[in-house]
Amino acid sequence: MDSLKQSGINVRKDASFSDWYIQVVLKTELADYAPVKGLIVLRPYGYSIWETIRSILDKRFKETDHQNGFMPVLIPESLLSREEEHFEGFTPEVFWVTKTGNNELSEKLALRPTSETLAYPIFSRWISSYRDLPMKINFWNSALRAEIKSTKPFVRTSEFLWQEGHTVHATEKEAEQEVMLILEIYRELIEDHLSIPLLRGFKSDKEKFVGAKYTMTLEGLMADGKALQMGTSHHLGQNFSKPFEIRYLGRDNQQHFAWQTSWGVSWRLIGALIMVHGDDKGLVLPPRIAPIQVVVVPIFRDKDAKWIISKANEIAYDLKKSDIRVYVDHREEYTAGWKFNEWETKGIPLRINVGMRDIENDQAELVRRDTSEKSFVKRAILTESAISILEQIQNNLFLRAKRQLEDNISEASNYDTLKSILDKKGGFVSAGWCGDQRCEGIIKQETGADIRLIPFEGQDASASKVCIYCSKPSKKTAIFARAY
Amino acid sequence: MDSLKQSGINVRKDASFSDWYIQVVLKTELADYAPVKGLIVLRPYGYSIWETIRSILDKRFKETDHQNGFMPVLIPESLLSREEEHFEGFTPEVFWVTKTGNNELSEKLALRPTSETLAYPIFSRWISSYRDLPMKINFWNSALRAEIKSTKPFVRTSEFLWQEGHTVHATEKEAEQEVMLILEIYRELIEDHLSIPLLRGFKSDKEKFVGAKYTMTLEGLMADGKALQMGTSHHLGQNFSKPFEIRYLGRDNQQHFAWQTSWGVSWRLIGALIMVHGDDKGLVLPPRIAPIQVVVVPIFRDKDAKWIISKANEIAYDLKKSDIRVYVDHREEYTAGWKFNEWETKGIPLRINVGMRDIENDQAELVRRDTSEKSFVKRAILTESAISILEQIQNNLFLRAKRQLEDNISEASNYDTLKSILDKKGGFVSAGWCGDQRCEGIIKQETGADIRLIPFEGQDASASKVCIYCSKPSKKTAIFARAY
Repeated sequence: MDSLKQSGINVRKDASFSDWYIQVVLKTELADYAPVKGLIVLRPYGYSIWETIRSILDKRFKETDHQNGFMPVLIPESLLSREEEHFEGFTPEVFWVTKTGNNELSEKLALRPTSETLAYPIFSRWISSYRDLPMKINFWNSALRAEIKSTKPFVRTSEFLWQEGHTVHATEKEAEQEVMLILEIYRELIEDHLSIPLLRGFKSDKEKFVGAKYTMTLEGLMADGKALQMGTSHHLGQNFSKPFEIRYLGRDNQQHFAWQTSWGVSWRLIGALIMVHGDDKGLVLPPRIAPIQVVVVPIFRDKDAKWIISKANEIAYDLKKSDIRVYVDHREEYTAGWKFNEWETKGIPLRINVGMRDIENDQAELVRRDTSEKSFVKRAILTESAISILEQIQNNLFLRAKRQLEDNISEASNYDTLKSILDKKGGFVSAGWCGDQRCEGIIKQETGADIRLIPFEGQDASASKVCIYCSKPSKKTAIFARAY
Repeated sequence: MDSLKQSGINVRKDASFSDWYIQVVLKTELADYAPVKGLIVLRPYGYSIWETIRSILDKRFKETDHQNGFMPVLIPESLLSREEEHFEGFTPEVFWVTKTGNNELSEKLALRPTSETLAYPIFSRWISSYRDLPMKINFWNSALRAEIKSTKPFVRTSEFLWQEGHTVHATEKEAEQEVMLILEIYRELIEDHLSIPLLRGFKSDKEKFVGAKYTMTLEGLMADGKALQMGTSHHLGQNFSKPFEIRYLGRDNQQHFAWQTSWGVSWRLIGALIMVHGDDKGLVLPPRIAPIQVVVVPIFRDKDAKWIISKANEIAYDLKKSDIRVYVDHREEYTAGWKFNEWETKGIPLRINVGMRDIENDQAELVRRDTSEKSFVKRAILTESAISILEQIQNNLFLRAKRQLEDNISEASNYDTLKSILDKKGGFVSAGWCGDQRCEGIIKQETGADIRLIPFEGQDASASKVCIYCSKPSKKTAIFARAY
């Protein structure tokens, strides 16, 4: 038995957020450190959460006519450098393969930081006519970006699991619709399944994907008041189709450059789950994303073990019939109390305890992870009660996080207020912005906060504001925050 | 529209097997070449076959208490070299990362050729007591081995998709059972789903996995008479648990080194599907592995298009209710003849044509891909007929391949016969072997054939034989073949 497992989380979330975070990651057996600095391994419990995220997204991608494919991890330097801005953005953090066996390579190979530059020359071979469009391909893989700054499991690691979608369209309008469709699919996943409320908007030109025409983003708020970018969807315009020569013959019998998008979410979402919902006892998982939604713990002594375990199995069987992911913990080498602790630490939404007295009373005890609330429920209505409580947990987690988000969106009308809010309270701060990258840069340098997004909503009001830094007329309402 | 798509396969399978193979790979849009030599990309059609293989295996792994995890692709040289034999086996083909950005790394990092040396020091941290065992973890990832010899899509590429399972057990017996269980799961997948008959046995010490105690293998026969290793399952003994210090506290309160296994299959299985079942028209997919099992082609002119397409949709709807994977090809920009060709090339097991005359006669036309047989079937019994024909196709492909395999297993009682069979006919040749690696090595050097396996069956008879090379008493019956 892992020695870490023997002790629960022993740092309070509000006492030392980052120590608490690391303890949750390690002690709930989500992940562990790999031997190379900045890299982590995903343990089965962590991977099963990723599998759930993956299956939700994969289904939606397929329903909206996307297909999966595979591209190798190695990209020749000459391709990576073909789109200049893109190359400059990524090269500082590229892992370079320079040898195979004992042989020096004539051209060094990058480990994929993202696949645009590898995929697009290949797409250009596959596309020749309007009949081949739209082409919508997704890759479930990992990306590699050497992190020199501080690393953090799930949030900032030198290799991370993600999906990257790449689409090619005949018209700009279709590409714009695609970017929006994907943003909505991500929002559904994050708000409706992960119970994490979001702000939606555009990235500023400074913060957008290098090489994109524009980037749309979903931003979440972590419990320590820092923002986390949860998913991005990029309209690439023709910025890549031109250097990579993705052209098609139109119905008009003319050659046209195609319009493109790319988009991705990563296992960073698991980090967000921890930071948003976790508490002093450990992880708290929203039911829709939990690999195990209900754990049934039979409470027995040696002589009645068989009987009580069989009752627990019956309860589990009924729940399974209603498509609930359930696990019966009938291990004999651990005490019931030890099991309660373990499942609480791991964030299982609902626990059902079944002891001899419960069986005699034709009931079971239900314990909610989110509120610690306990209730005794009659066996006859156990399944429907469990279903209803799981829904309540799902909603409660979302509403709790939404209150937290709303309480932490402030408005600032002058630079001093902005700085003071960031220092005292953190969270998101909405303010007017002239649109100049110089102001944006100075604010970031002086306060550590950057423009997280230019929100879709509320831009009408920005005309009446002034830039928070230079006081010139405001062009946009921007939302600033310190971020991971 | 891809120019390759416009023309069908134009090389006969028996005329130039390897040109035919490449044409099938490219023209059916399974895969394409990546810019780095030896690497391929998987197009959506190829990836969907891999997804089907993956989902079959993943279900079986989970049913047998395996869990998935993730390990990074980068392995420090010092770890890779900790098991000496293993290291020597893999280093010639390792891709080495020596830089990130512009910085030289102090220790070079290998791209995973396989994950034993990365995973096992981590497993050693996770395991401390018998309660933590067995630990059975699988990784769905890719492995990288620089191929300097000739490469071939799916069969020999420098990066390949695969799964690698790694298990740790308290006793040698459990490890032996695990190796056998996995071999059986692989056999089920390959024989029952891919319709490819197999030989089962042990690898010789020369050919086993470097570092393993022994390797069990499944070997298939390709249509050109060459063998292909389809899946391997390794009993690692304590060869890795000792250098990597995987120890557990037993019920006896003593420390013990654990027993381990590792095992894998790769996308090579897609190569085998092509080589075993394909024909002059292209791919032929067994129904259980086909991403699309039935394609419904409505045959229409402009004026009746709507009506006929709606009838085709109804047929598809009924098939879907019976869990058949079906696709209605109602594209208007292609002729029916063009569609027939495309789906035949892609190997869809069953095609259903629906034209106006068929609707008038309350029937549809069914066309089998494996035999080209056509039949008209009444609408009322269409679904059950389709199900029954799909089963027939599945069986027919297996039986056809099994005859092919059986016709190409020969016996040789002396070295000249062995050489002559290998030159004239190819296939598998069974012969006595003294067990000496010297004989094995000379045979390989002189004939190009190695010991593919020491079959489970028929070893009783080997005592009465002599070694095919040195004529000393035979210790084993070995099966030789030239192989991919």
